[in-house]
Amino acid sequence: MDNEILKTIPNEDENKDYTIEITIPEFTCLCPEKRDQPDFAEITVTYVPDQRLIELKSLKYYIVNFRDKEIYHEKATNRILDDLVAALEPRYMKVKGDWKIRGGIKTIVEVEYP
Amino acid sequence: MDNEILKTIPNEDENKDYTIEITIPEFTCLCPEKRDQPDFAEITVTYVPDQRLIELKSLKYYIVNFRDKEIYHEKATNRILDDLVAALEPRYMKVKGDWKIRGGIKTIVEVEYP
Amino acid sequence: MDNEILKTIPNEDENKDYTIEITIPEFTCLCPEKRDQPDFAEITVTYVPDQRLIELKSLKYYIVNFRDKEIYHEKATNRILDDLVAALEPRYMKVKGDWKIRGGIKTIVEVEYP
Amino acid sequence: MDNEILKTIPNEDENKDYTIEITIPEFTCLCPEKRDQPDFAEITVTYVPDQRLIELKSLKYYIVNFRDKEIYHEKATNRILDDLVAALEPRYMKVKGDWKIRGGIKTIVEVEYP
Amino acid sequence: MDNEILKTIPNEDENKDYTIEITIPEFTCLCPEKRDQPDFAEITVTYVPDQRLIELKSLKYYIVNFRDKEIYHEKATNRILDDLVAALEPRYMKVKGDWKIRGGIKTIVEVEYP
Amino acid sequence: MDNEILKTIPNEDENKDYTIEITIPEFTCLCPEKRDQPDFAEITVTYVPDQRLIELKSLKYYIVNFRDKEIYHEKATNRILDDLVAALEPRYMKVKGDWKIRGGIKTIVEVEYP
Amino acid sequence: MDNEILKTIPNEDENKDYTIEITIPEFTCLCPEKRDQPDFAEITVTYVPDQRLIELKSLKYYIVNFRDKEIYHEKATNRILDDLVAALEPRYMKVKGDWKIRGGIKTIVEVEYP
Amino acid sequence: MDNEILKTIPNEDENKDYTIEITIPEFTCLCPEKRDQPDFAEITVTYVPDQRLIELKSLKYYIVNFRDKEIYHEKATNRILDDLVAALEPRYMKVKGDWKIRGGIKTIVEVEYP
Amino acid sequence: MDNEILKTIPNEDENKDYTIEITIPEFTCLCPEKRDQPDFAEITVTYVPDQRLIELKSLKYYIVNFRDKEIYHEKATNRILDDLVAALEPRYMKVKGDWKIRGGIKTIVEVEYP
Amino acid sequence: MDNEILKTIPNEDENKDYTIEITIPEFTCLCPEKRDQPDFAEITVTYVPDQRLIELKSLKYYIVNFRDKEIYHEKATNRILDDLVAALEPRYMKVKGDWKIRGGIKTIVEVEYP
Repeated sequence: MDNEILKTIPNEDENKDYTIEITIPEFTCLCPEKRDQPDFAEITVTYVPDQRLIELKSLKYYIVNFRDKEIYHEKATNRILDDLVAALEPRYMKVKGDWKIRGGIKTIVEVEYP
Repeated sequence: MDNEILKTIPNEDENKDYTIEITIPEFTCLCPEKRDQPDFAEITVTYVPDQRLIELKSLKYYIVNFRDKEIYHEKATNRILDDLVAALEPRYMKVKGDWKIRGGIKTIVEVEYP
Repeated sequence: MDNEILKTIPNEDENKDYTIEITIPEFTCLCPEKRDQPDFAEITVTYVPDQRLIELKSLKYYIVNFRDKEIYHEKATNRILDDLVAALEPRYMKVKGDWKIRGGIKTIVEVEYP
Repeated sequence: MDNEILKTIPNEDENKDYTIEITIPEFTCLCPEKRDQPDFAEITVTYVPDQRLIELKSLKYYIVNFRDKEIYHEKATNRILDDLVAALEPRYMKVKGDWKIRGGIKTIVEVEYP
Repeated sequence: MDNEILKTIPNEDENKDYTIEITIPEFTCLCPEKRDQPDFAEITVTYVPDQRLIELKSLKYYIVNFRDKEIYHEKATNRILDDLVAALEPRYMKVKGDWKIRGGIKTIVEVEYP
Repeated sequence: MDNEILKTIPNEDENKDYTIEITIPEFTCLCPEKRDQPDFAEITVTYVPDQRLIELKSLKYYIVNFRDKEIYHEKATNRILDDLVAALEPRYMKVKGDWKIRGGIKTIVEVEYP
Repeated sequence: MDNEILKTIPNEDENKDYTIEITIPEFTCLCPEKRDQPDFAEITVTYVPDQRLIELKSLKYYIVNFRDKEIYHEKATNRILDDLVAALEPRYMKVKGDWKIRGGIKTIVEVEYP
Repeated sequence: MDNEILKTIPNEDENKDYTIEITIPEFTCLCPEKRDQPDFAEITVTYVPDQRLIELKSLKYYIVNFRDKEIYHEKATNRILDDLVAALEPRYMKVKGDWKIRGGIKTIVEVEYP
Repeated sequence: MDNEILKTIPNEDENKDYTIEITIPEFTCLCPEKRDQPDFAEITVTYVPDQRLIELKSLKYYIVNFRDKEIYHEKATNRILDDLVAALEPRYMKVKGDWKIRGGIKTIVEVEYP
Repeated sequence: MDNEILKTIPNEDENKDYTIEITIPEFTCLCPEKRDQPDFAEITVTYVPDQRLIELKSLKYYIVNFRDKEIYHEKATNRILDDLVAALEPRYMKVKGDWKIRGGIKTIVEVEYP
């Protein structure tokens, strides 16, 4: 995964504390144990920006990049938080991954920064 | 964008702290990266007035003015807050922009004053 | 507008603090800028009475009186509070005006006494 | 109105503080200003008993007795509280009257003891 | 009524404070004033066990035993609490009886221990 | 029951406190009193991991293992908590068992650690 | 009951077949077997007018007249149909009486003309 | 079971075909195989009367009579139809029994006449 | 599987065509390809009986018998129809199997007789 | 795409006409014009089998194979029908593709055989 895909734009309103919530209902990646078993999730990112905003088209390409990656539910959710925090250095961020049912089991992972 | 479009009327009840909530479900502007990609949002403005109230017809013309403007989601939301704060000098204001899905991604931006 | 229309009846239970909530879903007045544009709202009055109760039929006539009056959303909501406070001298009152959509814009105004 | 209709039964569990909520959706009385205009309401009584419980069939007859009585919304709600408090001497009681729409106006009255 | 019907099983997890909620939608008993008037209720028992758990089949037989018993709403709800407290000596218990409408009147009784 | 079925994977993000919620709608075991009476439940596990994450496929096999086991509702819910706590040593865990109706009675058991 | 209370107004649009639905949620009368047992219902009248329309205020007085009348559910519903058919001679009419629960039993009566 | 409990009243409107729907949510009887296992159902009777109407209080007593009777779901539903048809000789009747879950199995029985 | 588990009782109302709908939400069997992969379904049986009715407790034991059987979704649904038709010789029967999601795929099978 | 992935099992109940409905909510493929733009859909297959049934695990692998394929909405829906018809030679089949929103546009494609 290449997190340099993530592009940012300047936050011209950094004098204010404000909140941005981004919902990505079409996330998919591969199961690390069985490559032929894709996983599906809805990812929600909530953040208070500092000097940078995420550019939404680059976020889309970043998300599409997970499509061929083998990764666990918990790691993918944390990875999105880490990459976005590295790119944006936000004042606050939360990432929630709501994973579709597998083997009769459904999982939700929720991570916060800082 | 010409924020002088915004007209105000005197608040004859400035002796009271009271709340006005305005919902604008039909906001549209253009994507700054691809001019042929219009964006759609529902904007909600909540404020406690001081000496001035927003005149609603002028607010409608102000909102319509975004139609041919290329502007990011975050900037548009902050811009509406800034222009309304400049025109009204309210005791409190919050602007929320609920943006429709683009490239499989949905965004909500929320800004407060002061 | 003639607030002498408002009639009151004695509160025989003034030894208790109790709450009365009145909902008027059929309020209508005229737009001060375009007389041919009627506005519609649902008005909710919540109060704790002192020595007087509002007589409901007189409240209906008072409300009907707004029908041909040109008045802003904010002023109408405040005016109802002021007139009822003058007539009832209640221990507490809140008036909420929930105005129907006009030109793609919806407004809610909320005022409290004291 | 004859509040001696109200019968009570001993509360065999007065060593506990417990709550009883009684809902009466079929309350009706007459409008004091126009006898041919009946009013309808749903009455809710919530109480913590002391030594006495209300006997439900006598409560039904008590409620039916309002059917031919001319009484204001606020008075009826307070009257029910006063009569039940006199009969039961409860540790706590609340009476709520939710009155059906009249002349386009809806009213809710809520009274507490002590 | 014979509360010796209630059987218990040892709580092997008494080192933890945990909560058990049991819902019984099919409770029925007889009206003490008119034997031919059965009453119906939904009973909910919530408790934190100490050394004993209620055995569910014995609870079912205990509940069925009310079927031919003449008992008031308030007494039945308190009786269930008392019998279960005696059998289980729980750390906490709440019993709620939600009684079906009779003579146009609906009643909810709620009792707690300790 | 063999809790060595439970496999774990390292939590590469143990520097963060984050939450994982796992829902298992297809739990079934046998009634300890009547072996021919299977019981059904939906189990929900919520935890904050420390150094280990539960591997979901092994959790599925662990859950399937209850299929032929005779166990009470309360014990099964506590057992799942105990086995997962032993395998994961999490910072926090809650297990909720929502059991289907038996003999007209429905049960919910909820246990927390620590 | 005096059905001459019912007043009509001319249907100026008798050249068209059109439908009128009137809902009366506040109907009450007395039980013919126990005078102290009032009954409550919601009455719905649906009709296609011929030369006459029902005048609504007279319909209200007509309905209020049932308040002190002892009458069965079925007869009341049929009586309203018969009186309205006699007064209006409509092309079609249906009267539905939705009676509140009595003794744990709920009744709906539905009559059509012709 | 004594179907002579069922009383009828004359249908004064037998010149019309009209429909009566009666819902009885509080039906209970005993399981013929295990007397200590009561069954619960909601019974719905829909009929077009001929010369007789069912008197509702007698229907209540008739229904209460099943309380101590051992009878299968299918037989109880058919029995209610047969007894009501014998008493009323209606133009049409349907009886539906919606039985509560037993052993994880739910049953609905529906019978028509003629 | 032993379909002789299915017991029947005589249909005392075979002179009528009537309908019985049985819902079994707790069906489970094993996947023929991977024995450690149990499947779950809700089965609905709708039939018009001739001379025999299914005895519900025997149906429960019959259903529990699938618990350890390896069988495909389609075969299980057809098998239930065939066994019930053989035992009951009904005038009409439909069996619907609504199978829970497996590998991201959900299946519904519906079979009719005759 | 290799339709030989699709495996079948014999239909042991080919003497009956019965219906199988398969829902696949996690279908994804690539946009033929922009390879970096994945598409998402829910696919529903309804069929009446002849001599063969689709084996569900092979169907899952077949569906996963579209993941890296560039294909239009209409072609994908038709391709699934063609491949399943070739493998199963069913008596009847319908495939419905419900595609997620792209550029503010949502598409549903529905194909039938024969």
